[in-house]
Amino acid sequence: MSDNIKELEDDFLDYVKKMSAYNEALGLIFWDLRTGAPKNGVEQRSEVIGMLSSEVFQMSTSSEMAAYIAKLSSHKDQLSLTVVKILEECQKNYERNKKIPAEEYKEYVVLQSKAESVWEEAKEASNFERFQPYLEKIVEFNKRFITYWGYEGNKYNTLLDIYEPGVTVEILDRVFGELRDHIVPLVHRINESSHKPTTDYLFQHFPKEKQKQFSLTILEQMGYDFKSGRLDETVHPFAIGLNPGDVRVTTKYDESDWRTAVFGTIHEGGHALYEQNISEELIGTPLCTGTSMGIHESQSLFYENFVGRNYAFWEKNYRLLKKYSDGQFDHIELGDFYRAINESKPSLIRIEADELTYALHIIIRYEIEKGLFNGEIEVKDLPQIWNDKYEEYLGVRPENDAKGVLQDVHWSGGSFGYFPSYALGYMYAAQFKVKMLEDLPNFDELLRAGNLKPIQEWLTNHVHQWGKMKKPLEILKEVTGEGLNASYLIQYLTEKYKGVYKL
Amino acid sequence: MSDNIKELEDDFLDYVKKMSAYNEALGLIFWDLRTGAPKNGVEQRSEVIGMLSSEVFQMSTSSEMAAYIAKLSSHKDQLSLTVVKILEECQKNYERNKKIPAEEYKEYVVLQSKAESVWEEAKEASNFERFQPYLEKIVEFNKRFITYWGYEGNKYNTLLDIYEPGVTVEILDRVFGELRDHIVPLVHRINESSHKPTTDYLFQHFPKEKQKQFSLTILEQMGYDFKSGRLDETVHPFAIGLNPGDVRVTTKYDESDWRTAVFGTIHEGGHALYEQNISEELIGTPLCTGTSMGIHESQSLFYENFVGRNYAFWEKNYRLLKKYSDGQFDHIELGDFYRAINESKPSLIRIEADELTYALHIIIRYEIEKGLFNGEIEVKDLPQIWNDKYEEYLGVRPENDAKGVLQDVHWSGGSFGYFPSYALGYMYAAQFKVKMLEDLPNFDELLRAGNLKPIQEWLTNHVHQWGKMKKPLEILKEVTGEGLNASYLIQYLTEKYKGVYKL
Repeated sequence: MSDNIKELEDDFLDYVKKMSAYNEALGLIFWDLRTGAPKNGVEQRSEVIGMLSSEVFQMSTSSEMAAYIAKLSSHKDQLSLTVVKILEECQKNYERNKKIPAEEYKEYVVLQSKAESVWEEAKEASNFERFQPYLEKIVEFNKRFITYWGYEGNKYNTLLDIYEPGVTVEILDRVFGELRDHIVPLVHRINESSHKPTTDYLFQHFPKEKQKQFSLTILEQMGYDFKSGRLDETVHPFAIGLNPGDVRVTTKYDESDWRTAVFGTIHEGGHALYEQNISEELIGTPLCTGTSMGIHESQSLFYENFVGRNYAFWEKNYRLLKKYSDGQFDHIELGDFYRAINESKPSLIRIEADELTYALHIIIRYEIEKGLFNGEIEVKDLPQIWNDKYEEYLGVRPENDAKGVLQDVHWSGGSFGYFPSYALGYMYAAQFKVKMLEDLPNFDELLRAGNLKPIQEWLTNHVHQWGKMKKPLEILKEVTGEGLNASYLIQYLTEKYKGVYKL
Repeated sequence: MSDNIKELEDDFLDYVKKMSAYNEALGLIFWDLRTGAPKNGVEQRSEVIGMLSSEVFQMSTSSEMAAYIAKLSSHKDQLSLTVVKILEECQKNYERNKKIPAEEYKEYVVLQSKAESVWEEAKEASNFERFQPYLEKIVEFNKRFITYWGYEGNKYNTLLDIYEPGVTVEILDRVFGELRDHIVPLVHRINESSHKPTTDYLFQHFPKEKQKQFSLTILEQMGYDFKSGRLDETVHPFAIGLNPGDVRVTTKYDESDWRTAVFGTIHEGGHALYEQNISEELIGTPLCTGTSMGIHESQSLFYENFVGRNYAFWEKNYRLLKKYSDGQFDHIELGDFYRAINESKPSLIRIEADELTYALHIIIRYEIEKGLFNGEIEVKDLPQIWNDKYEEYLGVRPENDAKGVLQDVHWSGGSFGYFPSYALGYMYAAQFKVKMLEDLPNFDELLRAGNLKPIQEWLTNHVHQWGKMKKPLEILKEVTGEGLNASYLIQYLTEKYKGVYKL
């Protein structure tokens, strides 16, 4: 390995470029598996995934990587800012992966895979006790990992940091607390409102091919570049950025609920705009992706809710929707339609929740995870605690574990600290929106004209282009001048739902 | 590296498994690029291809590979037959790749890429002189490579051996000579026949979606397993086996010539059946693919011509074709339809040639390539020689180089020795067919009943399952009891075209 810093820097960049290339190949394999890869080839494809992943893992924890980190870190003043950031990202991964003893990690991987299949069975049978011993082990492993990784302030912070660097229990207790205290009474008032929207016509037959054509039109309106992407069908929709010139959106079509495809496509389209507009200079580096789960979600939710569930957006697009549909909207006024697509109703299942109640589903999970890692909650008590919280915050109580604590796959894979990102995305989005209005006071007019380009450009300028060059709270601070603040989201939701439910 | 042969064998198998995995990833990337990968992502995807290919290349020529070959080769008696065959395959590649000095090979790769783009321009301008200096260099490089690799008998044999191991100039001179001597007069008699089929209705509008549905039905009838494959659209159709559980067919639709998609799909489907039915034991080894270009082509041509252009096949499927079409066949008798899809007409362009004249296009290229490497032909004389041969064998003379010597891309990439495989495929297929009739004398009845399963099973049993475990001429000998013999193809073509043209 060279002692000349310039040469070392070039070698290091070649090294990470190779890792990026392998990750891009893995990304394509992932996309393919979820959009129609033949079933019988999957077993052998898993071998391919295993080989490539383990190569990337080995490269990220190799003695070569250690040497790059050590040598280059002591000469940061001679490196470009980009290289410094790449180095920090590699170092973070190196430490995260290296501090767990290899044998222990192997055991954990086996447990994860077993736990996921047990979770599936347990959910099927709606029997938490079957899953409990596995979840206990998963939690134990993660507690041990935290001792390896170390923590500041609160043990759960170390898990939060994986998905949302810089966000802590201290911050979340504050913002989630405020959010909960304002949304809960709002949800109750809505429940008691006599002005509920009529929604039956939303569920009338809407041919798949027409949904697709409408979705494509909306994606185009959003500024999604079809020369740098494509729309495909899948079971669990996602967007994936292989590189900024190849960012694919997937969706699913439900002929008795067109909202699944349309709002789903807008949501994934928001993710995709982020990945399509990352600076080309970051291609081939680990910085060429969204900076965090939460910021990524802020982009998808911005489009799904602030754009896609906005009245002005439908002033432009309702006529088009009518054209593609089978006639179910012909006698529905735009105002009624708008209220229908913004219906809010407490429910049990997170992924089916509406814009208003969604955050409560997340807050419940956050409070439980925090308690698990602080030793305040034991795994065996989860069903009881889960159900009590649902009753308290949402006024509904799961009749069984399948519809309660067993509904999400995340914990079976050990993904603790991930859920909060979903609600943080809402908060970031609301904060961005207020700031955006200063630059684009004609926001609603733009929607009305179907001219969404300035909105994308604003987001690209402030968020997209940076990729992982800036941390989430750094972006928030630079864009809005402040930290996480729940009041913007609270204000937005309060005003919106007062209107929808005539409170 | 272990000295224990059993351990060494396992390590070696892991080593080739990794190479296979990388090749599978490359295969998926290739498929994706040709079936709708977004244009803007291609540049970065090429980097990924470069990284993975160079990894595979390095692994195939590494000192580790050399050590495996050396150590294991001296204990072949202790290895399974499969491992011996893998070893031989790896050794062949190792020697092929290692004997060329690295610098020289690098220079050649740059030349290839330059030559291809110059060829494109030259073809566009129909100007052979522009391409000539590049082709001269490509030929020079290949002549040098032959001196590195060594040769037996004839220099051109070394190039033939790359694509069709065991097939030599001596063999080809004999079989291609016979074939030419019989086909040329047949083509002349057809030209003079007054019983030419009417074909205008073949070119009437046939909706793409209906072509697709028909093609899918035929693929299914052929025994193509859709749980182990899929059909997609592309510009230059191909089939690709990623692993036997994932073998994809691609096709293209021409609404004013349905034959492109239908016969194209049957052809690629033949390739796909080969790859789908390779023994699962060969997965993860370099033997898990067709044994040669020629044998692969024998499978695609068997289905395209012996099945797809057979009268009995259309006794079953003509009614279905009518159903999917826009009505152009309604008043066409099956017999006339059969003669129309078997029309033979001398033409200038290889890829548009019919079943009968196709071999002549190949034989012309063979004679030219052989002459180039034996020093009997110079590159500068190619257009003249090309045009003279077309006039002599096919009775047509290209009016310019674009329609003559510049029509194919192969030579710009240095693919000499490849063309003969196409005609060998016909010959193998005809030899297999005669043998198959001994086991399945009811061949035509099976077609008439749409029961193609026994045909696929016969081919799987005799050809498919072996992958690269057996060399092409070994398979031919085992199946038919003899070597390459042009008389079966000559007999088939003579009988068939006598019928079609009432000679």
